Amino acid sequence: MSSSTPCRLDQVQQLDESDPLAFCRQRFALPQHKIYLDGNSLGAMPAHVPARIEQVLKEEWAQGLINSWNDADWYPAPQRTGARIAHLVGAQAHEVIVADSTSINLFKVLVAALRMQPQRRVILAENGNFPTDVYIAQGVSELTGCQLQCVDPEQVMEALSEEVAVLSLTHVNFKSGRRYDMAAITARAHELGVLVVWDLCHSAGAMPVRLNAAGADFAVGCGYKYLNGGPGAPAFVFVAERHIPHLRQPLTGWHGHAKPFDFTHEYQPHPSLDRMLVGTAPQLGVLALEAALEAFDGVDLQVLRAKSEALTELFITLCDQQLQGLGVTLCTPRQAEQRGSQVSLSHPQAYPVMQALIARGIVGDFRAPDILRFGFAPLYNRYQEVWECVGALREILVSGEWNQPQFLARKSVT
Amino acid sequence: MSSSTPCRLDQVQQLDESDPLAFCRQRFALPQHKIYLDGNSLGAMPAHVPARIEQVLKEEWAQGLINSWNDADWYPAPQRTGARIAHLVGAQAHEVIVADSTSINLFKVLVAALRMQPQRRVILAENGNFPTDVYIAQGVSELTGCQLQCVDPEQVMEALSEEVAVLSLTHVNFKSGRRYDMAAITARAHELGVLVVWDLCHSAGAMPVRLNAAGADFAVGCGYKYLNGGPGAPAFVFVAERHIPHLRQPLTGWHGHAKPFDFTHEYQPHPSLDRMLVGTAPQLGVLALEAALEAFDGVDLQVLRAKSEALTELFITLCDQQLQGLGVTLCTPRQAEQRGSQVSLSHPQAYPVMQALIARGIVGDFRAPDILRFGFAPLYNRYQEVWECVGALREILVSGEWNQPQFLARKSVT
Repeated sequence: MSSSTPCRLDQVQQLDESDPLAFCRQRFALPQHKIYLDGNSLGAMPAHVPARIEQVLKEEWAQGLINSWNDADWYPAPQRTGARIAHLVGAQAHEVIVADSTSINLFKVLVAALRMQPQRRVILAENGNFPTDVYIAQGVSELTGCQLQCVDPEQVMEALSEEVAVLSLTHVNFKSGRRYDMAAITARAHELGVLVVWDLCHSAGAMPVRLNAAGADFAVGCGYKYLNGGPGAPAFVFVAERHIPHLRQPLTGWHGHAKPFDFTHEYQPHPSLDRMLVGTAPQLGVLALEAALEAFDGVDLQVLRAKSEALTELFITLCDQQLQGLGVTLCTPRQAEQRGSQVSLSHPQAYPVMQALIARGIVGDFRAPDILRFGFAPLYNRYQEVWECVGALREILVSGEWNQPQFLARKSVT
Repeated sequence: MSSSTPCRLDQVQQLDESDPLAFCRQRFALPQHKIYLDGNSLGAMPAHVPARIEQVLKEEWAQGLINSWNDADWYPAPQRTGARIAHLVGAQAHEVIVADSTSINLFKVLVAALRMQPQRRVILAENGNFPTDVYIAQGVSELTGCQLQCVDPEQVMEALSEEVAVLSLTHVNFKSGRRYDMAAITARAHELGVLVVWDLCHSAGAMPVRLNAAGADFAVGCGYKYLNGGPGAPAFVFVAERHIPHLRQPLTGWHGHAKPFDFTHEYQPHPSLDRMLVGTAPQLGVLALEAALEAFDGVDLQVLRAKSEALTELFITLCDQQLQGLGVTLCTPRQAEQRGSQVSLSHPQAYPVMQALIARGIVGDFRAPDILRFGFAPLYNRYQEVWECVGALREILVSGEWNQPQFLARKSVT
């Protein structure tokens, strides 16, 4: 579809009809009369999750009680669920485990990386990253005495040096949707002996991530965006096989112990990636995430990415055609290989505009100070939703519909 | 009931009939044909939890999607649930918050306590504590360079000194059931300027804990034992009001920020106890725990403790009367004020004996190397269950029923 020829609804509908992933949408319980373009804040619910959780509650917990840790295989759920995610991020099954939150996993790998490079005293991070990544690096810096150096994204390559112990980047930026070249950056970092942590919150489940092909050292990511694990779903952590035996993370809880049920006095890390575990796994969350990941069954990740590119491409094309002169600026790279599965627009009145859009049943996200963010989840979003979203946005901007008290008043946002 | 006069079944049944907490048992979904005396490993399921979670999944997540963080009040759930727990542990509502796991919360408060006492370099802890408490203290010691000193429980008082920054104890020991005098130890520690962290895993929900009456500084505890929050339920953390403004914990994630949704670059802790939050709360777990805590509605904690004492007293009396000469030794203090809500027995064949008991539908816990552990949850356990447990134990020991291959073979245990 060329951006010079106006795009028509029937063409868009044709895209849905020929969508090889159309069968996936029925795997989700989506609200009627709503267009949901915020799966990168909270993924939609896979329809079979409630039945699985009902079984966990009424059978495994209520009837099986403590024995379910063994009899219902609760105990290996973090490893089992990690193995499912490994498939989505280009890792081996034993290199990914589900645990805690993204922030906590980042803390573990940053401290572990610093311990692997004790002669180096710099953590390199990026300005404009999702705040928790920077905050956690600040906390690690304060605790370890290492220096935290934050640079703008385009300066990362030149800021790499033999003084840097670890580079911490997010693969796809939460605000702009810009995507780093994971392989190129990791390769350059390794030339200088720098370890790299990739935050995959905005890429895992939206595209094939190729951690091992890129030679990645560590990665973290969340379970509740494109993985659809539910609100506050547990996060995951990847450690390259070559690092696992040397990895010493600081949150030395009993579930990371070599023999947790021997109840010995001295901490001894588990030989496997289990050493990244801390306390008892949040089972309801882990089991909901495990079930949710079945929504990816039979999905070719290349096809998933092709749809992600096509959805975002269509959105950009329609914005070009329909929003000219309405004060909207595209913030996401036009080159598909440089972006994730979201498109962000800036507009001086982004907050009330998004509220007006939500009032029409089209849910995107506002990100301070002026960003309208739209996430396209290729498992369940349709091309016609993109069409309807841009059309509504045009109407709201042309009519000034956003300029009403109920849209202008700020409320707490997530 | 005197231990010299043999106790009769009809007397025990009379205790159940006059039990002022008998009405609470029907609040739980308990398996038929099972006697569950392991609520201190995983509490039983309050019967209304599945309906609440179904609502969370099918309405709040599936239909409300991202808006449920505001519209379904997900966002303040950690504070709301903390306030419910505060009532059970003698704290003010704003002094308790639900977050992460016990191990992770212990890490936060130990580092925070060390930062409050920078001129002191010793963490004092106890031998024989639940392993994760010691492991986490080892991790903090390694990370901060502070010395970890572990002493036997009876030496804690004399080991306190002006070199100790923080004392870390568990109120009720997981293995022996021995309970510390929280008020006396805290008072002595404070005389020497030592801060105290209490782990309440085995006391919260089983008895009235009096944190503020004891002048406690910090406490942590888990949601899945006597609080019945479900497998891997999130944990809680208490910080005395006087410490909150000065508390700097090292896991500086975005949910602990003063303004998480301003997405600023610099971490700034929230003025309130929200600063103990790290990443996005595990909502399924938090909301299940919140619902589960309704099982305490209308329960007088003095009455709860009276029943806890009476159940454990009955168990000890029946063991004295029925298990003499059978190789069983009581490991839990006979004085009610010195124990929690469990009774532990040692026996050289504790493992197969417990397996034989479980095969009869009576579920207690084995703790290495030789402990038979029985937890009595006053909300749902009955006196007759105590009677039947000791009777079965007697039969198993007298007959040698435990000495069979299926009971002797070790399997993984939790």
